[in-house]
Amino acid sequence: MSHCVFCAIIAGHAESSVVHDDAHTIAFMDIRPFTRGHLLVVPKTHAANLAELDPADGGRLFQVGQRAAVALRDSAVAAEGINFFLADGVVAGQEVFHVHLHVVPRKAGDGFGLRGRPASSSRPALDTLAGSIRERLGAHHG
Amino acid sequence: MSHCVFCAIIAGHAESSVVHDDAHTIAFMDIRPFTRGHLLVVPKTHAANLAELDPADGGRLFQVGQRAAVALRDSAVAAEGINFFLADGVVAGQEVFHVHLHVVPRKAGDGFGLRGRPASSSRPALDTLAGSIRERLGAHHG
Repeated sequence: MSHCVFCAIIAGHAESSVVHDDAHTIAFMDIRPFTRGHLLVVPKTHAANLAELDPADGGRLFQVGQRAAVALRDSAVAAEGINFFLADGVVAGQEVFHVHLHVVPRKAGDGFGLRGRPASSSRPALDTLAGSIRERLGAHHG
Repeated sequence: MSHCVFCAIIAGHAESSVVHDDAHTIAFMDIRPFTRGHLLVVPKTHAANLAELDPADGGRLFQVGQRAAVALRDSAVAAEGINFFLADGVVAGQEVFHVHLHVVPRKAGDGFGLRGRPASSSRPALDTLAGSIRERLGAHHG
């Protein structure tokens, strides 16, 4: 995949600080960390978005993320908590169009978190939305 | 697991608006949505945190999340993008101590996103951190 910075890292043509590397998945430090120790878990096979991503690769992203979460607590980072974050699509904040799972170590008072406030919703409204989503999920998987 | 609201939902003892239900994983609408269509993907086997979660269940969370991401775009929600978010630990914002993956549909101008700004970091600093994390990852998996 030309012009993909993560493919360049995977190919060894661009610099990175690697924490994990196996046949399917690589993890390296984010060059612009939200917090100290922020890393990215990336499938080696290029996929621009969640729809293109092989589900086997998706499962592996989460599993490497789980291991990294444990390691970040034990490492020099001394994380007290962990956030996973993933952006799919420009409107969701995706900037590199090669799927990546952010693993963000947390400490009290670090200032990281979510912007926006949850709203209340009624059960009938939720049931209506759930029906529409369930129908589409069914349509994709017979 | 007594006093776990997600276990109560899984057991059918508490109300929910379900979008997906299989042998290992359930997904339902978040009762306090960040955006319209916000849903949670939850393992049926209770695990308080990422360290306790069976990696097979972790992989399934991501895979159901991928399917939900596609469905949310096609459904009445008409999502234009998707965020995954997961909080592991109090300091990371975890409120229900049964692992759950947030799937948050996005539209332009919805006000949702991350709080905090990424900082620059030097390659030597990243390499040092990576070394410490890599060592702990190795320690956990031989």
